This record gives sequence, C-alpha cells and structure tokens, in this order.
Amino acid sequence: MSDLHVYDTTLRDGAQQEGLNLSVSDKLAIALHLDELGVGFIEGGWPGANPKDTEFFARAQTELHLRNATLAAFGATRRAGGNAADDPLVRALIDSRAPVVTIVAKSHVRHVESALRTTLKENLAMVRDTVSFLHGEGRRVFLDAEHFFDGYAADRAYALEVVRAAMESGAEVVALCDTNGGMLPDQIADVVADAVSTTSARVGIHCHNDTGCAVANSMAAVDAGATHVQGTINGYGERTGNADLLTVVSNLQIKRGLPLLETGRLREATRIAHSIAEITNVPPYSRQPYVGASAFAHKAGLHASAIKVDPDLYQHTDPQHVGNDMRMLVSDMAGRASIELKGRELGYDLSDENELLVRVLAKVKALELRGYTFDAADASFELLLRREVEEDATFDFFEVESWRVITDARGDEDALSEATVKVVAGGERVVATGEGNGPVNALDHALRRALAPAYPELDKLELIDFRVRILDAAHGTDAVTRVLIETSDGSTSWETIGVAGNIIEASWQALVDGVTYGLVRAGVPVR
Amino acid sequence: MSDLHVYDTTLRDGAQQEGLNLSVSDKLAIALHLDELGVGFIEGGWPGANPKDTEFFARAQTELHLRNATLAAFGATRRAGGNAADDPLVRALIDSRAPVVTIVAKSHVRHVESALRTTLKENLAMVRDTVSFLHGEGRRVFLDAEHFFDGYAADRAYALEVVRAAMESGAEVVALCDTNGGMLPDQIADVVADAVSTTSARVGIHCHNDTGCAVANSMAAVDAGATHVQGTINGYGERTGNADLLTVVSNLQIKRGLPLLETGRLREATRIAHSIAEITNVPPYSRQPYVGASAFAHKAGLHASAIKVDPDLYQHTDPQHVGNDMRMLVSDMAGRASIELKGRELGYDLSDENELLVRVLAKVKALELRGYTFDAADASFELLLRREVEEDATFDFFEVESWRVITDARGDEDALSEATVKVVAGGERVVATGEGNGPVNALDHALRRALAPAYPELDKLELIDFRVRILDAAHGTDAVTRVLIETSDGSTSWETIGVAGNIIEASWQALVDGVTYGLVRAGVPVR
Repeated sequence: MSDLHVYDTTLRDGAQQEGLNLSVSDKLAIALHLDELGVGFIEGGWPGANPKDTEFFARAQTELHLRNATLAAFGATRRAGGNAADDPLVRALIDSRAPVVTIVAKSHVRHVESALRTTLKENLAMVRDTVSFLHGEGRRVFLDAEHFFDGYAADRAYALEVVRAAMESGAEVVALCDTNGGMLPDQIADVVADAVSTTSARVGIHCHNDTGCAVANSMAAVDAGATHVQGTINGYGERTGNADLLTVVSNLQIKRGLPLLETGRLREATRIAHSIAEITNVPPYSRQPYVGASAFAHKAGLHASAIKVDPDLYQHTDPQHVGNDMRMLVSDMAGRASIELKGRELGYDLSDENELLVRVLAKVKALELRGYTFDAADASFELLLRREVEEDATFDFFEVESWRVITDARGDEDALSEATVKVVAGGERVVATGEGNGPVNALDHALRRALAPAYPELDKLELIDFRVRILDAAHGTDAVTRVLIETSDGSTSWETIGVAGNIIEASWQALVDGVTYGLVRAGVPVR
Repeated sequence: MSDLHVYDTTLRDGAQQEGLNLSVSDKLAIALHLDELGVGFIEGGWPGANPKDTEFFARAQTELHLRNATLAAFGATRRAGGNAADDPLVRALIDSRAPVVTIVAKSHVRHVESALRTTLKENLAMVRDTVSFLHGEGRRVFLDAEHFFDGYAADRAYALEVVRAAMESGAEVVALCDTNGGMLPDQIADVVADAVSTTSARVGIHCHNDTGCAVANSMAAVDAGATHVQGTINGYGERTGNADLLTVVSNLQIKRGLPLLETGRLREATRIAHSIAEITNVPPYSRQPYVGASAFAHKAGLHASAIKVDPDLYQHTDPQHVGNDMRMLVSDMAGRASIELKGRELGYDLSDENELLVRVLAKVKALELRGYTFDAADASFELLLRREVEEDATFDFFEVESWRVITDARGDEDALSEATVKVVAGGERVVATGEGNGPVNALDHALRRALAPAYPELDKLELIDFRVRILDAAHGTDAVTRVLIETSDGSTSWETIGVAGNIIEASWQALVDGVTYGLVRAGVPVR
C-alpha cells in the first residue's frame, strides 16, 4: 500500500454543489459507502457552523462503525483577536470527537486583508494558535491553505509562511487549495514542487474543475511530491465541482501503479459511485471517466469484429478493474456467475442450468435498459429469478383487476389521497379503499386491506421508504420514472422496484412486488 | 490572431456519442453556430461512408454560407492492395468538394496487423498514395494518426514513420490521436515533443476523456509544440467524450493569452454551447467549465459578503469573457449579503433595506428547515423576494378554488391520469380538465387550460423536467416530499419548488410557481 492519503470531502465540500442537500441520514449512508471503498479519510462536515453537521458527528459516535477510514471534522482558524481555547467554533471541533481536524486558513494576502479584515501577522498567529491548541488536545491536525495558488502568485513568501506556521505548530498535512479552480497543471506542479522543497510539510492537494483540469492538476501535484489528495465522489462540488476522487484514484492506481486502495476495493468503484448518486439524487453523468454508464460503451460499427478479437486494442484499461463493463458484449461469464451465486443463496443449484442463466441474464439486461436497477432492489431480482426457476403459479398470490387513486385539495387546505383497489385473492373478489397522506400511501393501505381476508400475514408489513428517480428527463415527455420502495415486516426489510412512464404505475409495481416478496419470505402458500 | 488551428469535430466524432443522432438539418444548424463562434475548421462527416454525410456535404454547397470556417471531409486511407484514384471512398471525398480532407490512418503496428490485416509496409504505401492523390487533386490534406500514443509506446519508429510518410506526400497537418483516451498529460507532452522535433510535421492533437484529462492533455500538447487542436462542443463523443473544445479554447485564450478567436467571439461561448445542446437534445451539464449553468454559481454564505466587495477574489476569471454570469445561490448558509446581491441581480437596490433583508432571510431559513432548497429553485426564490419587495397583489394572477387528479389502471394496461382544476382568473371562474401520462402532467395540462382564456401567453410554456426527493421524517412527523420542476418558454427555463407531505401537493405548488414566474417574466399584467 502506498502511504498517500486518499481524503474524501464529498460530505463537506461536495455538499456545496448547487441543488445538493444531504440529510444527516444521507451523510451517514454515504460515509459507509466511502469506508467500504477504502478511502483513508472522510471529512464529515463543519460541526458548530450548522446544526446538521453537529448532529452528524454526534450520531457518528454511536451509529457509524468505520472499518478503515478515519473521520475528519472541518473548521476554521479562531477569530482574529481571540484565542483558540475560548473560540466556540474551535471548541465545537473538539466536541465533535473526530480524530482528525482539518482547519481552513487564509494564505492569500488580499484575502487576509479584505475578506478576513485582519493583519497578515494576526492571520499567522491564528494559524499557530488554532493548530497548536487542537494538537495539544490530542487531535491530528490538517490545514487547508485556502486560495493557496492565487496567494502564491500574489505573495509567494507569505503563502509559504502560512505552510511553515502550520507545520511548526503541529499540523500533519498542509493541503494546498486551488479554491477558485483556475489553475493549469504546469502551474500546480511548479508551486507544489516549491512548497515540498522549501518547507518540511507533508503537502496535500485540493482542486476544483473550473478549467476542466481538476483531475490532471491533482495528478500533477502528486507527481511533484504531494502525498495527500482531496476530492469528492462523482466530482460533486460548488460551480464546476471538485476533483473526481474516483478518477484520480483510478489514474494513480491503474496508470501509475500506486496501490492506494486495498486489493479488490477499486472493483467496487462503479457500484459505489452509483449508490452514492442514488442517495444524493443527482443523476449520474454517463460520460464520467471509469465509472460512467458510457465509459466503456462502444457504438456498434466498423470496430465490432476487431473488438471481439482483441478488446485491449480498443479500451484504455480493463473495465473490470473499476467494476464497470464493456457494453457491446452481450453474454459475459461474470454476469452468469453472479446469477448462479445468487441462486445458490436462495437454495437453487443452477451450475448445470446454462440455458436458464442465459435467459435470466438476457431478461435482466433488457429490463436494465428500460431503467430497472436491480442492485438497488434485491427483492425484485429475487422474485424475477424465482419465477424463472419455479412455476410461475407459485407466486400468483392474487390477481389485480384494477386500481385507482384520487388526490384532491380545496384552496389552501392540505391535499388528501384516496385509493380503490379491486383484486381476486383466496378465490374471492375484493374491493377495498384506503386513504393516505399521498397517493402511494393510499394505494398501499387499500392493497393490504384488499388482501387481508386471504392473507392476514400482511398486517404486520409496513412501507418504510419510498424513493423516486426520473430517468432520461431530457425533454419531459418520454421520461420514465423509477420508484424504489422499502417494505418492513418489523424484523427485516427489503427493496422492490417499479419502472413506468406514470409515477403512480411505477409505484404500484413496486408495491405489488413488496407485498409479494413479503408473502414469499414468510413462507405463506398461495390461497 | 494565433495561427493555431481550432478544429471542430462535433459533427463527426462528437456524433459517435451514445444516444446522439443528428439529422442533416441538425448538422447544418450546428455548423452555422460553429462558424459564428469562429472555429477554423468544421469536420462535417464521412461522405461516401453513410448517405446522411454525403447529403450533408451536398447541401452544404448551396445552403451553408460560412463566414470564417473551412469545411473538412473525413475519410480513410485507400484499401490495402488497391490504389487511391480508383477507391470509391477516396473518390467520395473529392466529390464532397470540401476544401480540406482529413484522412484517418493506422499508426499502431498491432492495429495494422490485426484490425487492418495488412503489412506495415502496405499501410505506409496506403498513407502515401492516398495523401498524394488528394493533394494532387487540389485538396488540403490533414492526417489523423489513429491510436498514435499507444502505437508510439508499442513501436516508436513505426509510429513516427507514418507521420513522415504523410508529410512527405503533402499532408499539411498530422493530428496525433489518443483514440482510446488512456493517456495522461506528461505522456502526451513527451510524445508530442518528440514528434515535433524529429519530423517536419505541423503536429495536431486529438484527445478523448477516458482518464478525465482530455482538456489537460490538449493543453500539454500545445505546450509541447502542437499547433492544431481538435475537440467537440460540450465534449460530445464516444465513451467519456472528446476534449471539450470550448474549455480548451477558453483556457488557451484566457489563461495562456493566445488569441484564437476573433475579438468578442468567446463571449458567445455560453449561448452557442447551449444552442447546440438544444439541437442535439443532450441535457446541458451544469458543472461544465466556463459555460455550465453552475460554472460561476456561489453557494457558501460566508463568502457572500466578501464577494460583494471584490468578486475577483472568488472567481478564476470574469464570467463575461465567455458570456456566462455570476449567480448567488440562496441556501441555509446564506446571509443578508447574498440576498442583497440576489436583489441587485433582479434590479432592486436593497442596500438600505436592512429590515426587509432580515425578514427575507428569516423566511428563507424557516422554509429551508421545512425542506425547501432555494439554490435549486431560483425562480421560486425570486417570487418570494419580489413578493416581499413589491405589493403581494402584483402577483395574484389567479386564485385556486380546488384541484383533483385521478390515476387508474385495469389489469396490465398502462395507467392513465386525469386532472380537474377550478380557478378564478381574469374575473371568471373556470373549470378545466387535462390528461397526462402521469398525475403531474395531467395537472399541468389542466392548469394551463384553465388559465388560457385570461392568459393566452401561457400557451408556449412547457414542463421540461420534474424531480422528486423524499426527505427524512423530521422529529417523528411524516416524511416530506420535495418536488423541483423546470419550466421552459422555448428560449429559457426556470426551476420552481414545492414541499409537502403529499407528493401531488408538492408538485402542484411547484407547478403554480412555475406558471406564475412565466407570467412575471413575460411582463404580463394581472387580469
């Protein structure tokens, strides 16, 4: 393993992205994914500066069990004229209990004078006081030197003096930040090399993508001696975003041969990038390097036969390295193998069922093309597989005749939803209605009420989460809606999926799968 | 003006992007935009290889009046064992009448042998014969050396021999192509420098973005002596796309001081990038450098007061250089300064309106606590601010009495949605219904139908995007749904927001804001 730090700031700087708004639970879920990926550090937010981040660190103490990563709290140097020990924001960093504290400091003379409105001397004192206080309290202290590259151009000596002040006071890393993102790789390389050779600091790099060079700038910094790289998943961040951490790590690991992540971890990159996009609800960018849906997609054409003979001639790396797929190949062994494995989990030995495996794989690929995503809906995939392996009738618990949901409101009153569901179950036709604070809630109530006479076991089921994603929203009209529903039976929960042009229809599909899976799981026979 | 070639291949290599499909008229319209931008060369397609491209060049003769750019036709070297004068695809290049012909040739030994299935010697003969024939016919000939960088790594001497063969036969440019996109800037720089110093060629560069470095690679090539840069608008292209030409040109012109485009042309960049996206129907990427909607959008509230004093401290270049704008995003991190700045954008001087600023800020914070996120819904924030600054009645275009939406389905049929809306507008009570492929679509149709008698201006509005987010249950209450809607009037679009327990109610709020904003924007009086 290389000792280069992989430092993720998705939860803090990434959250600055326009339109991105993460709840505390979102942040905890993302942190788990980051830890699974194997990053060294997870910057969780700015405790004390906003209540949500304070709560994140409080809940992390009990709820977030990290396997590999170290949690970092972000904060600023103490106020001008005060002292660190009495500064409430500095205290909040201690209270967060994060083992690493990353302090942002000004290193650009004009920013010190016109944004911070203090003297150059006091700014250095603020750095020294804050770093040494936190260090004295037993924290590992990293410094983010804000606007460093612009500051270096304005006053090289002062910018480097900030680096030295931090190191001398106990900082372990000084990350040089291209805060405005206007640098090009040669400038980054020159400045990093100077900082590495003229200070004793462990130098880090923090880039933004305003010139389209955030990845290259991060690479240039590492080549020039930086040993700490900051970035965000999917390049989230303010304006044009931060350096895309997965691209930087993939480049360093695959192209430069630096073993940054534990063996096998990079193979989770595509899945993790997409899982995090599900949480942020920012549509994944299909042209994203390495992990994008199109990253290894070849338009069928004149190269098709040559690709079949020797794929390496037409791809810059093996997509398996990052858990992605070349998309021209229809049947690949990996796909079949994972379906076989899933079957074994469910108690089916499919090792000799090659035809069935090919059929299931083709079905999955066709459905995913229409917008299904089975890695987020295990229960729906399990039903699909069981239906192929066993007789269809095994799962015909009920037949849907029709459903209808009405939502209405008068003036400024709250809207009400009411659903009617007509089914045949246990040999009886049942018409049931349900109300809810939304159309899906109402449908859920009506469906379970209709099934209650035949299947009283459904009484304990509860719809606990509902997520909606509009796919291909390019021109509104042909957009398809993907709905994920999580259902619980009190002791465990499962995810099901529906995809349709109509959001209510997609929700209905997911509801029906959720209820059906509940019956399968409980071992209830068809009545 | 620098004599560096700006060579656009949006219409040829860009069109290889997954899901992109351009008609001949689309291509002609894009070519006009490219010419207006001021690129030197427009690669129009491959005449002879597909009928659409043959037609493009035929129609370009009479319909495309280029002010500045030169049209280039793309093709390949003649077939192995034949001769150029008799090759129908080479003849098609002559017939296209394009003054520049760009020929793709193999320069990688393995590709010659296993994809082209000919000898290394014959491949060189194909280059010489094709280039000298076309040159003899009075065409300017450029050569695209395919897989050059991988080929150089496999057999440097042979790769360079291909460059020499082309130059000696009359080629004006040899563009070195990183066809698989796997290179990093330092590799590009080394190879380009070698090609420049050991051949007499005018060297060009053609990059793909598979390592996230297409822009930096193009810059590195220019720094190493390349004087011809290829790329595509919005970085369109196969897999991760080609180098984004506008980012490369902006970097070279703004950061390196190379005057590539005529004075004032770069100021059209944002408008032209978005106009071309309208034609390709690929949603613009908001985080795109220089021209993206978020490229100069600031969220962090702590910076706002400093930005007010000195915007240059917080942006890497003046957005006006590329025809973009600085935007302040209002979020829960916002302060009074950012609201004042936003007011200034809308034409209100609020510098002395401290009480109003405090009131607006309190309102924003209270709404964000309930789940609103105004940085993603500029138009809703603008309505909120305008309602505080002006009389409320200024925006009372209509009064909603009630609305209702029904979604139903029988058996396996597709669901249908139908909405009824009752409003008072222009002094009349109107009841209108609308259908749609989803409840929000149906409500949108019904609402605009109800308002049409009083406000015929709404006819041209279109709902173009719809996003849904379920927010965590806060303090034991029910989950809340946030809906963002994007509405377009054909030339511009705006985002509005709704938050409610019921997803349909949240959608309704966002729809009402979207329509109201459309009326405000068009300067329509209350009727």
